[in-house]
Amino acid sequence: MTTTDATAELLARRRVLLGPSLALSYRTPLLIVRGEGAYLFDADGRAYLDCVNNVAHVGHGHPRVVEAGVAQMRLLNTNTRYLHENVIRYAERLTALLPEHLEVCFFTNSGSEANELALRLARAVTGRPDIATVDVAYHGNTQRLIEISPYKFNGPGGAGRPDDVQVVPLPDPYRGRFRGDGPGVAAAYLSEAVAVLDAAVDAGRPAGALIAEAIPGTAGQIVPPAGWLAGLFDAARAIGAVPIADEVQVGFGRVGTDMWAFGAQGARPDIVTMGKPIGNGHPLGAVVTTRAIANTFANGMEYFNTFGGNPVSAAIGLAVLDVIADEGLQEHARVIGKRLLGGLREIATRHEPIGDVRGAGLFIGVEIVRDRSTRAPYADLADDLVNAAVGRGVLLSTDGPDRNVIKIKPPLVFSSADADRLVETIDAILSELDAG
Amino acid sequence: MTTTDATAELLARRRVLLGPSLALSYRTPLLIVRGEGAYLFDADGRAYLDCVNNVAHVGHGHPRVVEAGVAQMRLLNTNTRYLHENVIRYAERLTALLPEHLEVCFFTNSGSEANELALRLARAVTGRPDIATVDVAYHGNTQRLIEISPYKFNGPGGAGRPDDVQVVPLPDPYRGRFRGDGPGVAAAYLSEAVAVLDAAVDAGRPAGALIAEAIPGTAGQIVPPAGWLAGLFDAARAIGAVPIADEVQVGFGRVGTDMWAFGAQGARPDIVTMGKPIGNGHPLGAVVTTRAIANTFANGMEYFNTFGGNPVSAAIGLAVLDVIADEGLQEHARVIGKRLLGGLREIATRHEPIGDVRGAGLFIGVEIVRDRSTRAPYADLADDLVNAAVGRGVLLSTDGPDRNVIKIKPPLVFSSADADRLVETIDAILSELDAG
Repeated sequence: MTTTDATAELLARRRVLLGPSLALSYRTPLLIVRGEGAYLFDADGRAYLDCVNNVAHVGHGHPRVVEAGVAQMRLLNTNTRYLHENVIRYAERLTALLPEHLEVCFFTNSGSEANELALRLARAVTGRPDIATVDVAYHGNTQRLIEISPYKFNGPGGAGRPDDVQVVPLPDPYRGRFRGDGPGVAAAYLSEAVAVLDAAVDAGRPAGALIAEAIPGTAGQIVPPAGWLAGLFDAARAIGAVPIADEVQVGFGRVGTDMWAFGAQGARPDIVTMGKPIGNGHPLGAVVTTRAIANTFANGMEYFNTFGGNPVSAAIGLAVLDVIADEGLQEHARVIGKRLLGGLREIATRHEPIGDVRGAGLFIGVEIVRDRSTRAPYADLADDLVNAAVGRGVLLSTDGPDRNVIKIKPPLVFSSADADRLVETIDAILSELDAG
Repeated sequence: MTTTDATAELLARRRVLLGPSLALSYRTPLLIVRGEGAYLFDADGRAYLDCVNNVAHVGHGHPRVVEAGVAQMRLLNTNTRYLHENVIRYAERLTALLPEHLEVCFFTNSGSEANELALRLARAVTGRPDIATVDVAYHGNTQRLIEISPYKFNGPGGAGRPDDVQVVPLPDPYRGRFRGDGPGVAAAYLSEAVAVLDAAVDAGRPAGALIAEAIPGTAGQIVPPAGWLAGLFDAARAIGAVPIADEVQVGFGRVGTDMWAFGAQGARPDIVTMGKPIGNGHPLGAVVTTRAIANTFANGMEYFNTFGGNPVSAAIGLAVLDVIADEGLQEHARVIGKRLLGGLREIATRHEPIGDVRGAGLFIGVEIVRDRSTRAPYADLADDLVNAAVGRGVLLSTDGPDRNVIKIKPPLVFSSADADRLVETIDAILSELDAG
């Protein structure tokens, strides 16, 4: 059977067996069978430069991470109702990377489970069910997380904003109401956020928690104006809401200058949630919070997570931290990210559809527009670009509410040659599409 | 450092680092470092017969399951937006084990994620937010799942029943309002359940889903009277609610006579959820439903689960199914479970505190009472028994709303010698405690 036949056959079986609400990437879906470093390989052995899978944080199939999991799987995998060294060492290592006041850990199996638990922790403290969230955010796939995710409830099939959810504006310096990096931009967005929070207080339903990503991802890799997140968390504290930093997309050194994206913005969360990159693909998530919040949550009701913090997951999480440190991946993300941003900005001077290039470290967005003056989103061109890139062996994807932002968030082992190749590929495709 | 010192040291570090709402098992917590088959081993090499970890379904560290995971981890772990053979094969194998109308799969990372998704699926079909649940049930650790878990919301730290949750009575033939196995018992419980469902319909808030375990676990391993679950699901259908079978505790052959506990009761769910044993400890969960429900759910909003159904998880899930089949573990659970029930019933004739022995296959409950005539729960004795058993190298635990039910749900590789040893151990401990 040829690979084309195998792909068609798998596709047909998948359509029958898996829920139709799960989409495949690319017009011609890929049959990926192997991964190594920043590369994925299809059934024909064709290599694809992976510019989009931030989950494979330290590189696909990193031997240290794999072997740490293998050794522990052969020895023992059980739950946290017994003592085990791994989960304790992991909690020590993780808290050592965080501000001092974030000192108590809970382990889950995903970022969704982490965000769910964060909401429960906050509610235990405040007794308030209402949640404030940032426009176009996505925080996970449970019922409640969909309800606090404007990306979903305002998107296709969404039911709109629930009464017990407050939405503060997305601080988008390119497309938002307040633009640019002037000193008043953050203040203007914060003023609107405070108005939203205060209106809810006045209406008798103050938010119990405010959840935000330091660099909103599904909104289109938006880099907020300096000071925004710190100010937003202060505004939350001012009304008694617990500030939650969702680091599921952006944590673990990806932003380069800092281990955590909230740190790069000088913000002080009382709860931090982690997922995606934390286990390099292994199902793992974490919540780290203050002792006061953890103690209040312990009201007699046990929180038990069957698989959370098991010895295998903890061994894998530890190995990921080891690799980030030993291979200097945070600094690497800073250096390569800077090179990539520079390269993308350089080609932007020659390609009218590149309306904006933004990001921090290896978390980058390239906004595709019809016209730089109107900034009208050009989703079709973004989609053409992504699909043409696959043909050239480069994996990208789009995001943002208008699906016109090219999302770049590769494994951190992405090399300078990989960065140059990505820039050249986008350059070449846009030249072709411009000419076409 | 002696093991006692190591245990004390780990305990001290754990108290500082992990949320205090996570309890350890046993008065003297165990430092478990290795697992094999039905046995766990502590740091001194002491073996414990594991009678309680149903998660390690085909035995701790089963080589076929471990090596399936190892091989796939070394090759590739990525998400379901690419095609991959494993997840398709796994979905084929899983649906082949289910009634024909259950034909579409969703994969998650835990039973909690599976039950969350099940509620979303049901709501997409009915548009109704209210959920009906069985008294003393536990369905998972998210906010919404705690809200539909009377075991939690009526337990320590619980906030009571939410307005949008309806609780039908637990069909407990030993301690409930209707007792014994007479032909009218199921009908009596069903009549009360129908009254609860109908009252909510009359109040203008009909349930959108009814979720139930075929053998309620946290309620104390309750074996309902014959026909109860089938009748309950029929009652749900009659008011337009989607019947959900939660097989997280009881699925995958544990009940012996059937692969699924709902099947053993002749019930017909429209959604089945799976967790715990599905990956032998690997974080994995699944939801299987009808094509009609899956299609209705696909309203434009994507359901994506970052780690769910990844090639490693699917390889492990497949290996678990292979081992169950190749080692005949379902039939083994039936045979050993029957022997164990017989042995426990035999010693019950000599020990007044054993008020009831019940179960199906290797999912068994032993109810400890102060007095057989009053059936007053005797939690202290149950707790003494469990802790004395640890001293004899046997791991058990308690459950039920009164914490007086000894819960027995070992890895299915439990041998007849293991079963005999468990019976002898309980016999000996009760003899000692009786004399003491």
